[in-house]
Amino acid sequence: MSRQIFIGNVAVGGGAPTTIQSMCNTATYDVAGTLAQINTLAAAGCQIIRLAVPDMASAAAFKSITAQSPIPVIADIHFDHRLAVKAIENGAAAVRVNPGNLGGSDAVKAVAEALLKYRVPVRVGANSGSLPKEFVQHLAATDPAEHDELLSDALVQAVMGQIAEFERYGVRDIKVSLKASSVPATVKAYRKFAQRSDYPLHVGVTEAGTPARGIVKSSIGIGALLLDGIGDTIRVSLTADPLQEVIAATRILESIGLRSAAPDLVACPTCGRTKIDLVALAEKVENLINRIKAEKGVIGLKKIAVMGCVVNGPGEAKDADLGIAGGDGKVVLFRQGSIVATLDEAEGFEALEKIIRENTIWQ
Amino acid sequence: MSRQIFIGNVAVGGGAPTTIQSMCNTATYDVAGTLAQINTLAAAGCQIIRLAVPDMASAAAFKSITAQSPIPVIADIHFDHRLAVKAIENGAAAVRVNPGNLGGSDAVKAVAEALLKYRVPVRVGANSGSLPKEFVQHLAATDPAEHDELLSDALVQAVMGQIAEFERYGVRDIKVSLKASSVPATVKAYRKFAQRSDYPLHVGVTEAGTPARGIVKSSIGIGALLLDGIGDTIRVSLTADPLQEVIAATRILESIGLRSAAPDLVACPTCGRTKIDLVALAEKVENLINRIKAEKGVIGLKKIAVMGCVVNGPGEAKDADLGIAGGDGKVVLFRQGSIVATLDEAEGFEALEKIIRENTIWQ
Repeated sequence: MSRQIFIGNVAVGGGAPTTIQSMCNTATYDVAGTLAQINTLAAAGCQIIRLAVPDMASAAAFKSITAQSPIPVIADIHFDHRLAVKAIENGAAAVRVNPGNLGGSDAVKAVAEALLKYRVPVRVGANSGSLPKEFVQHLAATDPAEHDELLSDALVQAVMGQIAEFERYGVRDIKVSLKASSVPATVKAYRKFAQRSDYPLHVGVTEAGTPARGIVKSSIGIGALLLDGIGDTIRVSLTADPLQEVIAATRILESIGLRSAAPDLVACPTCGRTKIDLVALAEKVENLINRIKAEKGVIGLKKIAVMGCVVNGPGEAKDADLGIAGGDGKVVLFRQGSIVATLDEAEGFEALEKIIRENTIWQ
Repeated sequence: MSRQIFIGNVAVGGGAPTTIQSMCNTATYDVAGTLAQINTLAAAGCQIIRLAVPDMASAAAFKSITAQSPIPVIADIHFDHRLAVKAIENGAAAVRVNPGNLGGSDAVKAVAEALLKYRVPVRVGANSGSLPKEFVQHLAATDPAEHDELLSDALVQAVMGQIAEFERYGVRDIKVSLKASSVPATVKAYRKFAQRSDYPLHVGVTEAGTPARGIVKSSIGIGALLLDGIGDTIRVSLTADPLQEVIAATRILESIGLRSAAPDLVACPTCGRTKIDLVALAEKVENLINRIKAEKGVIGLKKIAVMGCVVNGPGEAKDADLGIAGGDGKVVLFRQGSIVATLDEAEGFEALEKIIRENTIWQ
């Protein structure tokens, strides 16, 4: 098990629940705009937020932002260690630095002193796109598998070097990430690091791209690691509104069983056997669930099954608190494994909605 | 390594490239409609197609469909072994059966004889929703992890029993699937089976639901297994048009490096550092790539990087055949690691498009 650190009041590692983080795309010095986005993301389930700190105006803005944010705020630092020190002084719950890009050892020492003084952890985050020059031998590899192997080694080495520098000054509250834009390289890097160290891990695939591809890449990379028990906090990186990152991250945790899907909507694919409009029915049920959740309703059903036919229908429905299975123009309604009604297809959704709403508690 | 079988002319297992399959949602007896959908799916990259065979009219339709389909056609059989025999006689490239639902041993014997006579393989496919009664002890588990453990054992046992029945009659061309609607249970089941047997594996998560959740669940489950080297053919099950299944399956294989993404579009998430409209630019580049590919253009660039700023931009761009990195109202264009132009933001996409089109070969 990884050791535990705290980002503000949020435990990361040491068996704490895996948390979701994202990054604002507002200008950090725009305090009102940034806080508005933080609030939106927090309401959607984001538990830790990171802000870019490219200049002193952004570092200065941390004072107001951290005072008002409902979730801990991390400062993302590149190139200039003074920005890190200023953000820490202004209430940053952690800083993130890339191996080797803070400047020389004086710069690391200055950041380490601020970390220790304010009892703030640091993320040592390596990215395939910003590895120091001495680690880029993988670029010479012609075979993709060899490239991924060398790149994952480079990420581990880069991180280890930066960790050693911080440890020299007594910093122990460290969180680590080793992200590549290649999914296999990312997974290899985290697995290798987890064998060598118990620092908690921030897991993600970097520059995963637009949602169409990025959600697939992030789901595979983050999901495979979480299934292995690797990953204490996650970020889905998408070229999109960060809200989409939080939604995708939530779905990954739900799929792994690390967060209650509450209710888990199981629906079968369509095939030539399906005689009802299953896609429309499943989409309607999903939208209903999302709407109720957005309005802070807690649905007291663990699993809802929307099934097209009699092959897997009764079986999945038996395992579900509420199920519907299609027949020829008719649907059968199940509760806890028993048929409770046979209805016309048109009545199916209304019957489901009634039961779902009866089992919802409003907060 | 798994042993190799052939579904029609498509090799499955034994080191053959991982193939994509899907299932039509037309009525199988509608020959013209089914062929039209097969052609659409095949054009999108589907390599093996499966059709439901709920009645004799559907089994009879296999004659015309298999004669005209550009890809091998599998018959999906439940409950009635005569449908399997008829579909095999009519050219089915394989049949899929669920453990225990064909009927008694006479039924299995009849199917086995047809399989051997026509040299056709069988998929033994267990689903969490249709396990025979004797395997459903997992439903009594209260702890989710224990449920997944017991369910994965049940899937393996159910499959092993059905395999033994077929082997008794000399059938050796067998493909196996062990799908649960729970991702962890699915991954556990395949890993356990792969340790015990070298039959090739058809991998998927069953009843994954609508695309919003189903793509995440399928990406994690299929992706984690493929990263382990488990999986000879894959199906993404979505409550949606099967075309979406093929697109998602393609993206999973590309993300794992099992299929050339050609070009791989790497794009960073937005953050407060981004000064250009990165989301719009990345979406435009992705749409351009998709459009060119749909028109059968082969883009001779392995990796295109669309980066928001100077942190990871130059690094990823260095590793890319073509890259663009944003600055303050300006963008920098990279080719093979060298800056080739500094342009106004508005000119960036046109410059990229020009280079992408110059590197496209039309088939």
